[in-house]
Amino acid sequence: MAKNHKFAIAQINTKSGDIEFNAKKIIEKIKEVQENNIEVVVFPELALVGVGLDDAVKRFPIIVEQNLIWLKEIAKMTTNTTAIIGFYDKDCQNSVAIISCGEIKQIINKSKPQIVEILGLNFYITIGEVFANNFDDEFDAIINVCAKHTSINKESLLNNNLSNIAKTFTKPVIYVDLVGATDSFVYDGLSRVFNKNGDLIDCAKFFEEDFVIFDPFNSAKSVINKPSAQIQKGFSLDYGADLERTYKTLVLGIKDYFAKIGFKRAVLGLSGGLDSTVCAVILADALGPENVYGISMPSKLTSQESKSDAEELAQNLKINFAQASIKDMVNICDNNFQKLFSNIEKNWDCRYKQSFTMDNIQARSRAMYLWGISNEFGSCLPIATSDKSESYMGYATINGDMSGGVALIADVTKTKLFALARWLNKNRAQKNAIPESIILKKPGAELAIDPNTGKTLNAEDALMPYEFLDEIIFRIENNNETYEQMLNSKFLYESKENISKEQKIQWLEKFYKRMSTSHYKWSILPPAIITDDHSINPQIYSQPITSSGINYKGLAGCELQQKIKIFS
Amino acid sequence: MAKNHKFAIAQINTKSGDIEFNAKKIIEKIKEVQENNIEVVVFPELALVGVGLDDAVKRFPIIVEQNLIWLKEIAKMTTNTTAIIGFYDKDCQNSVAIISCGEIKQIINKSKPQIVEILGLNFYITIGEVFANNFDDEFDAIINVCAKHTSINKESLLNNNLSNIAKTFTKPVIYVDLVGATDSFVYDGLSRVFNKNGDLIDCAKFFEEDFVIFDPFNSAKSVINKPSAQIQKGFSLDYGADLERTYKTLVLGIKDYFAKIGFKRAVLGLSGGLDSTVCAVILADALGPENVYGISMPSKLTSQESKSDAEELAQNLKINFAQASIKDMVNICDNNFQKLFSNIEKNWDCRYKQSFTMDNIQARSRAMYLWGISNEFGSCLPIATSDKSESYMGYATINGDMSGGVALIADVTKTKLFALARWLNKNRAQKNAIPESIILKKPGAELAIDPNTGKTLNAEDALMPYEFLDEIIFRIENNNETYEQMLNSKFLYESKENISKEQKIQWLEKFYKRMSTSHYKWSILPPAIITDDHSINPQIYSQPITSSGINYKGLAGCELQQKIKIFS
Repeated sequence: MAKNHKFAIAQINTKSGDIEFNAKKIIEKIKEVQENNIEVVVFPELALVGVGLDDAVKRFPIIVEQNLIWLKEIAKMTTNTTAIIGFYDKDCQNSVAIISCGEIKQIINKSKPQIVEILGLNFYITIGEVFANNFDDEFDAIINVCAKHTSINKESLLNNNLSNIAKTFTKPVIYVDLVGATDSFVYDGLSRVFNKNGDLIDCAKFFEEDFVIFDPFNSAKSVINKPSAQIQKGFSLDYGADLERTYKTLVLGIKDYFAKIGFKRAVLGLSGGLDSTVCAVILADALGPENVYGISMPSKLTSQESKSDAEELAQNLKINFAQASIKDMVNICDNNFQKLFSNIEKNWDCRYKQSFTMDNIQARSRAMYLWGISNEFGSCLPIATSDKSESYMGYATINGDMSGGVALIADVTKTKLFALARWLNKNRAQKNAIPESIILKKPGAELAIDPNTGKTLNAEDALMPYEFLDEIIFRIENNNETYEQMLNSKFLYESKENISKEQKIQWLEKFYKRMSTSHYKWSILPPAIITDDHSINPQIYSQPITSSGINYKGLAGCELQQKIKIFS
Repeated sequence: MAKNHKFAIAQINTKSGDIEFNAKKIIEKIKEVQENNIEVVVFPELALVGVGLDDAVKRFPIIVEQNLIWLKEIAKMTTNTTAIIGFYDKDCQNSVAIISCGEIKQIINKSKPQIVEILGLNFYITIGEVFANNFDDEFDAIINVCAKHTSINKESLLNNNLSNIAKTFTKPVIYVDLVGATDSFVYDGLSRVFNKNGDLIDCAKFFEEDFVIFDPFNSAKSVINKPSAQIQKGFSLDYGADLERTYKTLVLGIKDYFAKIGFKRAVLGLSGGLDSTVCAVILADALGPENVYGISMPSKLTSQESKSDAEELAQNLKINFAQASIKDMVNICDNNFQKLFSNIEKNWDCRYKQSFTMDNIQARSRAMYLWGISNEFGSCLPIATSDKSESYMGYATINGDMSGGVALIADVTKTKLFALARWLNKNRAQKNAIPESIILKKPGAELAIDPNTGKTLNAEDALMPYEFLDEIIFRIENNNETYEQMLNSKFLYESKENISKEQKIQWLEKFYKRMSTSHYKWSILPPAIITDDHSINPQIYSQPITSSGINYKGLAGCELQQKIKIFS
């Protein structure tokens, strides 16, 4: 191994199913590699065809056929260089091809990692997860190609795992990941190389395409500029370095979603509240402010402050801004509804004394405006602005704020959005784009009057403090805690505010009750950009709508005995 | 084996996650079994906890804890009888417990079928799919518990497979399936027993709970009343016996969806067209006509015939009926939009000369009315009425006819709906409830005027003949045919109508083009009752929205060579 080697990682952003687009990128990289006498270049998982097509390749065999033809043609271009390229083999298996000297030398399936001889050395080639116990010792280096979506703990878990594998076998590890987004899934890049001592010797860019040249057998440790790895241990309002990752996830998620469906413009309702504000900043950064339209759509309940905050934000961000009242629309709708409802209640004696009908008319009128703009103007999509805390509580309107071409922040909790807003004001080139009044005001949708205060209803009064709510979500998603465990351990909120046990019980029970009837809303949410391993996005987490009968508290022993007695 | 045996199958309808509800049913059956000296009773897969909870049991460990406690208590009730009950074991594994004499005797995981001794005999117990090659020969009978959703070819494939297994091993096969629905999935029952010669000796009811007592070792073949099995070979407008299965699937799907979320009333728009008509019939049969409200919501484009057809249908079905015009709502919306659009086009020079904005305002106004009723009246859900043919084409309005608490017919194609309408008129107790004029009229949403005819636009003129469209869908879903294969073989429509090759190419290309931009719409479709193995329901089929760049025709050899030349 005294000889020097020249390897490369091509961390590319692929388009799912657009083989021509991906092939062009791969061919460009192979040309670059051959011009620079690089011996081996490795592409990410399914580089030629893109991710997320496991169902599609079975329904549409042309995708596999075409990817095989392209692969053969690409192989013909290789001279001495070896390229390792992810594709679907003829049996629709997720595979990599090792191509060199004008031909396809070998094919390896994801389900069957194998050793391949390249340059007289043995490389253990794996796709997807690497499990150390899969290896025997007859190899010189490990090449792992994958497509692993970004999450809070990914970086530290992955880095430690790969470094440990290198150390255990005293062999270099070459890890090649994808960058870019496919619908809800965002891939953060950070392909990397460890030497045989487990030291990181090279690392590709975070959330960007990159091309890294390295020698895996050169054990010199170098200083690598890569984001610090942190494991999230308990709930905290200090989201630390994860705010940068979250911001970049959302920006790349939106950018690629629009680019890959051929859209360029976004329209959103600007309420002057936190959710739509954070969405507007992300959109401005992802699509360019000239491609974003913020619409203020006041009703009779909208405060002057909300209107002026929205306008100030739009001015700061230099996005387009318009105002359109929904008052007359809501009035006519209400008028027609009263007639219709009087008719219906003649046959159905189940009319509510108090309903959310009026609240929802407002949210739905706004969505109608946004979809109208999307229908009328080219390449334009409306954005759904509901957040994760409210999705858990079902506190979002069907065909209202839940509706849009993409749900930008549906996987971000409210307390994290507050932290993100502060982070954006501090860390974007343009400081303090978000007016302080938006960050300071109490969240509320301005859809109804609180009979207790005579003012518009405050979301935390309707639900519970977001800090408490978000900690429940954190504990369930990250620790799988039960009702009992949550009841019997202290919440961060409890260390600040003196709350009674009855109050805590009431909030916990409200949480379960509201969550158990919110699965329908989760199921129809537009594609939500996933920022973590735990999500309510149906691509990651699915639960029947008809499972609303789950008893999340569980029956205590005596209650259960009682039931058994009745049943038997 | 001279001894007579008394076994039972308890084909029950479970509620996902509602352990108490399921336990009560199981206990009742065990009591019945013990009173009747039945030696063995078998319940379906996951009978104690319900299906579809694989994600939920990891997030909420209380579900597994509670199902273990209940199982122990149920075991305590058993005396000499053996019960085989599906549940989640402590490691969240889909399992069955064999309980008897007051205790849990054995636990078998889905991933590891095993032989269990009961009554001195050896039973090979499997969960889910049965694969003949998994068996060695040391057993006396096979018990297969499962939960397999209904589909066109399920019955014949399953029956042949089970019968062959019995014959191959000359052992009885006891097959226990679920009945009922969990969200989109409908389970049709038909649990059954084969003797060692492969003859069917008993069969439980189709789409109903049932309790069947039998002796698996008694080889007498009996006459069983079970639906005829048929394999669907090619596309045909004669949907034959599958219409009854489709009808029962939709009725049970709706009935259970409403019952299991605690709702009882449905409201739908009655346009006088086929889709809403078939939905109304299904709803009346599933929920009772008094619980269904049909709303006619005419615009200025709605014909007198549409209004009178809708009203006549409602009268025939004895469902509630009301009329509410959307004219003034659409007018005010249009007014407001024109002002807003003029504003926006000052900054964005991408306003369409012709758009679907007005068409969609109408469909969205109607959905607003329906959701308003759902908000105002107790236990009431609006129904989405878009069909499968139109979903493939994206020919349905977001927040319009696509929107509802459940998408009743989103997995049924238009030609099948026509056949179903005729079948309903002939086979329901009340004959000819659907006015003939509804079946005879050409489908069209009455949202826009066709400039060529001056009349409202006909859907087939906008798309292509439904007969041709549905055959494309059939060929892709069932045979995975490519563009080339479809172009070069004769469609049913071509045997009736003389169409040019250019016309065929144009329709095929339109199909791919429209389908490739419809995945977003599929992703936000409300829970759609699945009627088959092939569906666009994301629970069964998922494809990235961003995969719109797939070239479904594929590049011909020369085109590909051309591209390669440019890229290299």
